Amino acid sequence: MKTTEKTVIAQMLEHRSIRSYTDEIVPAADIEQAVAAGQKAATSSNIQTYSLVHVTDIEIRTAMIEISGGQDKVRDCGAFFVICADMRRHRLLADRCGVPCEQNVESFLLSVIDASLFAQNMALAFESLGWGTCYIGGIRNNLSAVQKILSLPTDVSPLFGMTVGRAAEEPWPRPRFPVDTIMHENGVVSDDVVLAQCDAYDDLMREYYLNRGASGRTWCGQMERFFEVPKRAHLKDFFEQMGVRWR
Amino acid sequence: MKTTEKTVIAQMLEHRSIRSYTDEIVPAADIEQAVAAGQKAATSSNIQTYSLVHVTDIEIRTAMIEISGGQDKVRDCGAFFVICADMRRHRLLADRCGVPCEQNVESFLLSVIDASLFAQNMALAFESLGWGTCYIGGIRNNLSAVQKILSLPTDVSPLFGMTVGRAAEEPWPRPRFPVDTIMHENGVVSDDVVLAQCDAYDDLMREYYLNRGASGRTWCGQMERFFEVPKRAHLKDFFEQMGVRWR
Repeated sequence: MKTTEKTVIAQMLEHRSIRSYTDEIVPAADIEQAVAAGQKAATSSNIQTYSLVHVTDIEIRTAMIEISGGQDKVRDCGAFFVICADMRRHRLLADRCGVPCEQNVESFLLSVIDASLFAQNMALAFESLGWGTCYIGGIRNNLSAVQKILSLPTDVSPLFGMTVGRAAEEPWPRPRFPVDTIMHENGVVSDDVVLAQCDAYDDLMREYYLNRGASGRTWCGQMERFFEVPKRAHLKDFFEQMGVRWR
Repeated sequence: MKTTEKTVIAQMLEHRSIRSYTDEIVPAADIEQAVAAGQKAATSSNIQTYSLVHVTDIEIRTAMIEISGGQDKVRDCGAFFVICADMRRHRLLADRCGVPCEQNVESFLLSVIDASLFAQNMALAFESLGWGTCYIGGIRNNLSAVQKILSLPTDVSPLFGMTVGRAAEEPWPRPRFPVDTIMHENGVVSDDVVLAQCDAYDDLMREYYLNRGASGRTWCGQMERFFEVPKRAHLKDFFEQMGVRWR
């Protein structure tokens, strides 16, 4: 089953998101193994507030292309998953013994963190089995549509998708910030230092963009307008409908 | 440096949170390696909306014990980190070119997911180097105090801590849900099935609790009252002060 035998850190350092896949299907045994390994990630008080939808239906996957902003890989990858924050188990257990189940900012955070820790372990497990992966935040363009098409009940909230499959590309690894840009001792650095770090990072990124055929692009240039307009402004209402109270 | 050489999935399957540590300090080289590997986790559009505070000051760590509800390991572990959602870089870049930087539910989600993917990679990297880890959600008991003691600026929001160190205990691994409890094809299962799954999981958990000397405890019993009272109800205001708008 294991197609590669790498140490953990070597596997992490090789990560790059894969956006183009062959038509090879990911076998059920690999999925079972990666999901089970993913679940070994820490979970706050063992609450395990997440679920995973393995989307095999081609019509659903085709509909997901449009939802995620035209990403054909959602249909064309070897396996597609929707990772959900899942508070339903806890609500049903509370209902059964007649106590309230209060969702607020803390429980929302708990479930998003739990689901994300699980997902990252799962992604790395898939990569260690030789598969490429890509997170699909694009499903958040329309979570109500995702919820409807997957017939999800109240309090099972899709958060992001994940494509898995055999890589049909060999992308350049994208450089990250140097460690001393993100880690500081007993505090953080001043605004001036932060801006200088961003500019220094662009020396790395300019070379990366050049190699990708996007000469002249900069990370700072991408980021300075990233939050100019509030994105996906329906999410507040969506999560409220799913039971979250902002309190 | 590498004290163990395990495949990725084998490493994940060995995970258990370590809550008791020897007084061995984690060397800087291991920290550098684990953080850099952690950073290779996927990040939405490469936004990298996180920072890490390496807390070495013994007074700060002692203060963190009380904040996290009496967890001595925050002081006694081999290295202690506070993982933060960090939107400051993006705001400073936006400020510099005079455009707004709008934080809403989506940007909050982005930064929490980004920070969590990073943290899980980092935790697993530390484990692969032979260190034990434990997430410390308890710092959310009082994020304003954490912010103050670390002199964090607006829009660098602590999310959780992480203790790292040499294990001074060998805890039983805690069983997770079976894969077919959390993964479903093209949808999810009915409420009745969910409750039956929770009860079936308790057959595994009863044995686990028995081995831990907590005979009679059940997972359902723990969970049914977990959200009875809204927890950490100050978080809404805290994140608003940090710039998040619930829209």
